[in-house]
Amino acid sequence: MLIVAALGGNALLRRGEPMTAENQRGNVKRAASVLAALIDQGHSLVITHGNGPQVGLLALQSAVSPDGAFPLDVLGAESAGMIGYMIEQELANLASQRLYATLLTQVKLDPRDPAFDRPTKPIGPIYDEATARRLADERGWAIAPDGDKWRRVVPSPRPLEILEVSVISYLVAHDVVVICTGGGGIPVIARDDGSMVGVEAVIDKDLASSLLARQLGADMLLMLTDVDAVYIGYGTPDARALRRVGPTELSGLDFPAGSMGPKISAAIEFVEAIGNPSAIGRLEDAVEIVKGRQGTWFEP
Amino acid sequence: MLIVAALGGNALLRRGEPMTAENQRGNVKRAASVLAALIDQGHSLVITHGNGPQVGLLALQSAVSPDGAFPLDVLGAESAGMIGYMIEQELANLASQRLYATLLTQVKLDPRDPAFDRPTKPIGPIYDEATARRLADERGWAIAPDGDKWRRVVPSPRPLEILEVSVISYLVAHDVVVICTGGGGIPVIARDDGSMVGVEAVIDKDLASSLLARQLGADMLLMLTDVDAVYIGYGTPDARALRRVGPTELSGLDFPAGSMGPKISAAIEFVEAIGNPSAIGRLEDAVEIVKGRQGTWFEP
Repeated sequence: MLIVAALGGNALLRRGEPMTAENQRGNVKRAASVLAALIDQGHSLVITHGNGPQVGLLALQSAVSPDGAFPLDVLGAESAGMIGYMIEQELANLASQRLYATLLTQVKLDPRDPAFDRPTKPIGPIYDEATARRLADERGWAIAPDGDKWRRVVPSPRPLEILEVSVISYLVAHDVVVICTGGGGIPVIARDDGSMVGVEAVIDKDLASSLLARQLGADMLLMLTDVDAVYIGYGTPDARALRRVGPTELSGLDFPAGSMGPKISAAIEFVEAIGNPSAIGRLEDAVEIVKGRQGTWFEP
Repeated sequence: MLIVAALGGNALLRRGEPMTAENQRGNVKRAASVLAALIDQGHSLVITHGNGPQVGLLALQSAVSPDGAFPLDVLGAESAGMIGYMIEQELANLASQRLYATLLTQVKLDPRDPAFDRPTKPIGPIYDEATARRLADERGWAIAPDGDKWRRVVPSPRPLEILEVSVISYLVAHDVVVICTGGGGIPVIARDDGSMVGVEAVIDKDLASSLLARQLGADMLLMLTDVDAVYIGYGTPDARALRRVGPTELSGLDFPAGSMGPKISAAIEFVEAIGNPSAIGRLEDAVEIVKGRQGTWFEP
């Protein structure tokens, strides 16, 4: 079965944990052991991942450079190199599979997407409100609350096309485990002459993974995070985990835009377009989720 | 003809030029127009590139992070993402070819290579001696003279094996232009149990490109830099450009270790192992070099 498996940023760096290379590698190892189990069960994997904390830190580091900060497309490419390398290495150390490719991936956006004027995607460290406001003043950031703390937010337009999808298809057909669309992919737009150029944005990795899964015609879109299922009334005494749902059952329900919302949209878009299932659940449960015993399944 | 084309760090950032994203992109565009001409003449290209200035800047930026500096393998992967993305994008904007893959590439080293105890490879900005000595004290760097200035130096062990070479071969066979082995590749060693782990080093990109060209059985190894040929007595009144040389003619000649030395070693290793030619010359002359009308050709 060809599975597009999306690793949440929280699966790579736990909330509040310092972003040392050691912490990242430890979390990547944890994710790799789960993914290796899926590979060893005979599944073909295309692995995507978030980059929120990482691209934010690279942006902070880049801002102190005397030569000027790098734009978010370039920083996104850096973060995809960093995280993709660690995933490939740790996975190859654990799985019996021998062929891996970590690919830089450009994702085309609509230059007229209204999201360019409405930054919503949190990146980088978590700040108290006063620090966030000071940094916003000093650096021209947009900021927004994230729980009881604050973070920098950047535009997150809707992904339209994965440019490297033919190459990814070739590799999958040759039994190569592909790591790609890191951080939702590198945001690019087409100029009037058809040439591509990077833009200042960060693409939601679940929406980009759904697009990739649709372009590949994958058998399953699997989104791995740090909660075990989609909940109705999450955080309330009446919280109830959803186990198996058709897309229509979800209409009318409200989910927070920041976390579960894009995952649910990504799942529904995939299921409706391809007619194959999508699932959301905890990283550690991945094998059981694929078997239909854990997580929330979205079915056609 | 399958050409492994190695872009010198100086082809991507001119000496002394500030490392802004704009300057890098401008230089990448210049390189891309030359590579696009080779592609449009029907050659298959595997493109490698240096990362000396870039990985050095990322190391500097990373050192100011409150969460601690990242090791050189991780920074190398970041730089490969950044530079590879820009090359792929600018090349796709210019060449008629439609399939590109920018691959993270791990290169295996010998953990007992004496180079680990003898840092020689310059990375990052150029400093005056006093500043270099102060930074060396503060940060535990090794430093060394580079012309009349000073730079940080790091270990540069000999590359032994490109781990992703099977995947690169597949892609070349499918008419994909591959960008890989960025910055000489990500330095890794095998642990006693056979698993791989990154190490603190930067691999010479010409030696790694020669290894890649040998593993691929390329028709030509082309090293593009900012001088038009290999010179005997470079910088003296008796300077004489070498045009066509067999490996034996070079024995006994002395070349500086920092710049031309590794290129000549890389050329000789390729020619002796594969029996196909290698050439060194100016980026802008690439099309004429491949035709045998410019640069220095090394022949079997």
